[in-house]
Amino acid sequence: MADPSSSSIPGPSEASASLFVQSAPVPSHFERIQGPNFEEPQDINSLLASFANVGFQASGVAKAVEIIEKMRRWRGEEPKDDDRDDGSTEPTPQRCSIFLGFTSNLISSGLREVLLFLVKHKYVSCLVTTAGAIEEDLIKCLGHTYLADFHLDGGELRKRGMNRIGNLVVPNDNYCKFEDWVMPILEKMREEQGESVENVWTPSRVIERLGREISDESSVLYWAAKNEIPVFCPALTDGSLGDMLYFHSYKSPNLTIDLVKDIRRLNDLSLKAPKAGMIVLGGGVCKHQIANAMLFRNGADYAVYVNTGQEFDGSDSGARPDEAISWGKIKSKERGGESVKVYADATIVFPLLVAATWGRAHWDEQAKRRRDEEPNGQQKA
Amino acid sequence: MADPSSSSIPGPSEASASLFVQSAPVPSHFERIQGPNFEEPQDINSLLASFANVGFQASGVAKAVEIIEKMRRWRGEEPKDDDRDDGSTEPTPQRCSIFLGFTSNLISSGLREVLLFLVKHKYVSCLVTTAGAIEEDLIKCLGHTYLADFHLDGGELRKRGMNRIGNLVVPNDNYCKFEDWVMPILEKMREEQGESVENVWTPSRVIERLGREISDESSVLYWAAKNEIPVFCPALTDGSLGDMLYFHSYKSPNLTIDLVKDIRRLNDLSLKAPKAGMIVLGGGVCKHQIANAMLFRNGADYAVYVNTGQEFDGSDSGARPDEAISWGKIKSKERGGESVKVYADATIVFPLLVAATWGRAHWDEQAKRRRDEEPNGQQKA
Amino acid sequence: MADPSSSSIPGPSEASASLFVQSAPVPSHFERIQGPNFEEPQDINSLLASFANVGFQASGVAKAVEIIEKMRRWRGEEPKDDDRDDGSTEPTPQRCSIFLGFTSNLISSGLREVLLFLVKHKYVSCLVTTAGAIEEDLIKCLGHTYLADFHLDGGELRKRGMNRIGNLVVPNDNYCKFEDWVMPILEKMREEQGESVENVWTPSRVIERLGREISDESSVLYWAAKNEIPVFCPALTDGSLGDMLYFHSYKSPNLTIDLVKDIRRLNDLSLKAPKAGMIVLGGGVCKHQIANAMLFRNGADYAVYVNTGQEFDGSDSGARPDEAISWGKIKSKERGGESVKVYADATIVFPLLVAATWGRAHWDEQAKRRRDEEPNGQQKA
Amino acid sequence: MADPSSSSIPGPSEASASLFVQSAPVPSHFERIQGPNFEEPQDINSLLASFANVGFQASGVAKAVEIIEKMRRWRGEEPKDDDRDDGSTEPTPQRCSIFLGFTSNLISSGLREVLLFLVKHKYVSCLVTTAGAIEEDLIKCLGHTYLADFHLDGGELRKRGMNRIGNLVVPNDNYCKFEDWVMPILEKMREEQGESVENVWTPSRVIERLGREISDESSVLYWAAKNEIPVFCPALTDGSLGDMLYFHSYKSPNLTIDLVKDIRRLNDLSLKAPKAGMIVLGGGVCKHQIANAMLFRNGADYAVYVNTGQEFDGSDSGARPDEAISWGKIKSKERGGESVKVYADATIVFPLLVAATWGRAHWDEQAKRRRDEEPNGQQKA
Repeated sequence: MADPSSSSIPGPSEASASLFVQSAPVPSHFERIQGPNFEEPQDINSLLASFANVGFQASGVAKAVEIIEKMRRWRGEEPKDDDRDDGSTEPTPQRCSIFLGFTSNLISSGLREVLLFLVKHKYVSCLVTTAGAIEEDLIKCLGHTYLADFHLDGGELRKRGMNRIGNLVVPNDNYCKFEDWVMPILEKMREEQGESVENVWTPSRVIERLGREISDESSVLYWAAKNEIPVFCPALTDGSLGDMLYFHSYKSPNLTIDLVKDIRRLNDLSLKAPKAGMIVLGGGVCKHQIANAMLFRNGADYAVYVNTGQEFDGSDSGARPDEAISWGKIKSKERGGESVKVYADATIVFPLLVAATWGRAHWDEQAKRRRDEEPNGQQKA
Repeated sequence: MADPSSSSIPGPSEASASLFVQSAPVPSHFERIQGPNFEEPQDINSLLASFANVGFQASGVAKAVEIIEKMRRWRGEEPKDDDRDDGSTEPTPQRCSIFLGFTSNLISSGLREVLLFLVKHKYVSCLVTTAGAIEEDLIKCLGHTYLADFHLDGGELRKRGMNRIGNLVVPNDNYCKFEDWVMPILEKMREEQGESVENVWTPSRVIERLGREISDESSVLYWAAKNEIPVFCPALTDGSLGDMLYFHSYKSPNLTIDLVKDIRRLNDLSLKAPKAGMIVLGGGVCKHQIANAMLFRNGADYAVYVNTGQEFDGSDSGARPDEAISWGKIKSKERGGESVKVYADATIVFPLLVAATWGRAHWDEQAKRRRDEEPNGQQKA
Repeated sequence: MADPSSSSIPGPSEASASLFVQSAPVPSHFERIQGPNFEEPQDINSLLASFANVGFQASGVAKAVEIIEKMRRWRGEEPKDDDRDDGSTEPTPQRCSIFLGFTSNLISSGLREVLLFLVKHKYVSCLVTTAGAIEEDLIKCLGHTYLADFHLDGGELRKRGMNRIGNLVVPNDNYCKFEDWVMPILEKMREEQGESVENVWTPSRVIERLGREISDESSVLYWAAKNEIPVFCPALTDGSLGDMLYFHSYKSPNLTIDLVKDIRRLNDLSLKAPKAGMIVLGGGVCKHQIANAMLFRNGADYAVYVNTGQEFDGSDSGARPDEAISWGKIKSKERGGESVKVYADATIVFPLLVAATWGRAHWDEQAKRRRDEEPNGQQKA
Repeated sequence: MADPSSSSIPGPSEASASLFVQSAPVPSHFERIQGPNFEEPQDINSLLASFANVGFQASGVAKAVEIIEKMRRWRGEEPKDDDRDDGSTEPTPQRCSIFLGFTSNLISSGLREVLLFLVKHKYVSCLVTTAGAIEEDLIKCLGHTYLADFHLDGGELRKRGMNRIGNLVVPNDNYCKFEDWVMPILEKMREEQGESVENVWTPSRVIERLGREISDESSVLYWAAKNEIPVFCPALTDGSLGDMLYFHSYKSPNLTIDLVKDIRRLNDLSLKAPKAGMIVLGGGVCKHQIANAMLFRNGADYAVYVNTGQEFDGSDSGARPDEAISWGKIKSKERGGESVKVYADATIVFPLLVAATWGRAHWDEQAKRRRDEEPNGQQKA
């Protein structure tokens, strides 16, 4: 081999020029990468705060905490346009409407209890999901879901009547119990509906009714119904509830579940919100449907995506917030919007996000209340 | 460091035992891994056949070709239970019903033309998709979609009215044209419907109507309507069509699109099919809805999934066929079912799969017909 | 359409049989899925403990905590075969050797400080990584790395001498400083080596030397050298250090860095460990090299993988622990091995894992020491 | 709910303004999305050409074909600086040096035969890979690798001595045969090396020797050695070959495999290439090492990545070409560079890419030669 340091071919000295390019000065607003200091004890909030300067997805988690805090704390100047039921004459401040979307499997998982916390305490304004989430929330009031393994044999499970969802299994008996529970309700709903298109059901009204009927404090839908938080689910028939509606249609035709009245209800919520934030766990309809509603207000103010989808296949599920910005579904940074996508399974990240935002605030409030309730003499110095 | 070959600690001789474990005899049915022989010219069919022994996802592609060929070629013993319109008295053999699901972005992409080929020639029995696919197919008759880049700035695109879908852009004007086209049709549909729940629309009937109205041979929905191939789309309002229905509802209330009649229509198709195959490109509702329908026949006989989803987050989108087997949605191998998941973007894989199955058969048939049509005297020697 | 409830075709009653399959009894050891109770305050440990019953990857995180705790707490019956330097005559108990692998980008990120904590306190036995980790740890002593964005334009960055690593940037000047620092050291190393193959360098010896030379308490390599924790890096030339060795070879040939002596050193560590655990963050050489070493002891006892790789492409990076079990690199469950793969970016998960294991123990110990050091009279009641 | 069409809150008319934003004119160079026309027969080349306008990853595949064709066809103006061995006096034109990187599992798969085609016909200039590829290529000359399944039980496989690589298995006996074959060669290499650092081995020289020794035309390494195509593998000890070197070191110490001479050899190849293209299948060292070498020429002219990695975790494996551009490892578009990443398993995509480029040219050449060799009288009219 010729000596590259000779003059006829490019030699290491030329290579040096490529390697040792000088940098432009580092802008003063640049933040240094530096991890958490484990010499000092860390708690959820200190650790997640340290994530901002860790880089990669840790920085995304910290950003998500920051954006959710903004959604949570925002108060508008105008009093809220609502019916007060507490007899108060003082105006309620406007709040940010929070549209929370999630895929059905998260209700199958233990995120159901995290979602319950948010709905029970009215921390979110509406939910958007797919059919499995509706039925699984109700079914969990009738029977348990169990931890299993991603690699159990499907044929063997079928023989044992065990339905697998990732590393969970749901005994098929639970679905039998669901049939027993839901069929009479569908029949009542058919009767109440009557024959006119004015009075048809919509997915959100069906879900509200089922939430009231289940009357179980472990149910997300129960609390959603009680707290008047609408639950949207355009593809309501895509699951066990669809199976029940199918069988019911042979017994008693013309129970009607209309999509149009629901899209009006959802889009109006977006349109009239003084400020709007999206939190979407997973992809598919729950992600697109919320984003689409945001178009009616010329873009969400805040958006947090947590999912494992990738953009390379052009799917909406994998699309970054910046794609939604091009459609006017999220406000660009220039227009005051803030958005982040965290690339992770929501079962890991969402409990952390909730703990560091609503959780912290809730627990601080509880602690304060407990302190306030203590008799004077026993207060700490 | 102590010498590991001394007796007091495990030495290399003990390590040898771990490393040089003897194998059990290789079963005679095991197939050797061996790639294509590029010394000989390869065409699509020879290359995809060679994939069977390449391993990893190439083997999955070869398996998908094999399963689709089985769907395509299957003929039942009973004559098909249908209305013949050709005056023939000879019974039509039973065929495998093929349920083809795909995400909306594939209609935005050039797979639209591949799907068109399958629908135009009645190679599939029904389609299941999401709202974007319905509107984008129609909109493409009114304006073009363009190749762009995954990394264009969303804020800049919004200013220019360019909506990004992965590495594509759709000018927003196309959606304005869509409004002009669809609003009068919605009004006619409202009039035709009347006030009774008996006569409400369903997503599949709306889609069929739009397919007839567009009357454009470049449209998948046009051919689906013409060929009486139902197109199911439970979440029909989750997109631009939902936006139009929203605006229409303020002009003219109570146009009703019912989910229940459609789930009955879909499940009945599954129930009565003598044999059923699923081909699903992407995840979300189009995947789950077909699989769910298969439960009504105690499992699909054949299933091909092509998507980029992963099972680790417990999503249905990422679930392998074996998860569906546990639910009875696909038949286990023991029960004669055959299934495969190809982990890939469908835009790469689906054209190959179609070319190697229906494409090959179609082109062979065309060539044969052309030869047969040639006058005798000009035939090749 | 024919009525499916008529006798000639399968009707809903047959469909019922498929849908309402009875389940076998649920085994008593099955664990119910149930999420954290956010009505009560959660801390890192309570939250991660609750993850066990959340499902999907949250359960994987909980399992990883459990396995790392076993690594951390394991004590063998035999005294450890080591040189005591504290004058003690009491035998040290055997401990589990922990082989920690990580990709170079994690040193670029803020995980560097988390890794520092583990190395500084001798919580791990050896490190395996790739070249970037070596140079970035040293370079961070000479200049900062900054938080940026995944979507900055590469051409513009190059003009400004800013090298992007995911959403981080490193000014190219840092590499110029590294050259100034390292070249004289390479020259000294060349002199010390001499001309005989007996005395050549290995990657681990080079790294140890550089760790001593940097003499900076913020450096992982400094603590590794000080604490005699070997750092293996077979592909040591695959990065900036390789660039420096290249230039140096033109000034002063025959500095030799031998792979063979290092593979002997690493495999001997595996062979003589009374118990061995792997923790691997990311894929590539750092993952395979540790697993391969475990073969010499017929399998690791414990294994925790944290990465975003997938198995479908047959890559070792994406392979599950079960693939390593087939090779004898991890012990099967039957043989007492315990392993888990968490599908996530390590920047989110690893700080949590460390906080819930070594972190908790360390902070408890610190707190206890502080309490013990307090004068009697000031102790809390 | 208040009527959103009333004046006090934003109504549908305001929503209209958001939805029906006008587009800027579509630039004339924009290409319309349009899929292949399956009414006409498609072959590999027509189908891949149609992919350019399909979008998503199909467009990436078409771009990869285009870039590889440029690498393949490029001819410089200067005669090549080489030693002619054919007695010719005519200058050989400069060609683009093609650096082909791939992960070891691709040699385990049937891509070995595709790589063989490229190496046998000297279509590439050098290879960069990891240890598994070296040993598996040799081992395949001694025993077969078989098609299996991703979900076989690891513990059971271990008992049967079957090592799993994705959906392949390699009988452990093959490794025993490899030991028998390689140990005497290592011993000879030790003898030839002697005691001076001047004469130590490097990974590429070891690989060349093994390629010569195997003397089997089915081996990629055989052809690489024969055709003087260097094979770089910095982490050569990270696999079975490392195991053998380990055992050998106990029999016969100081066989030395030096990294420094190899990094010089690789970087010099980059430095002196008149034009340079990278093709990298998979991630890890094979990807980074080639990119790093390109820095010595201020960037590759052409780059094609095919892998399944994602950028979100900041890994080099998942980094897009644009990250390498920021480092000066690939030339920016402005500087004439062309690059693409195809997000796919290489076993699907690489055979297509080779068939549409070198394959087509090779088969055309063969056909032409065959026609030319035919006696005149039998030529077609």
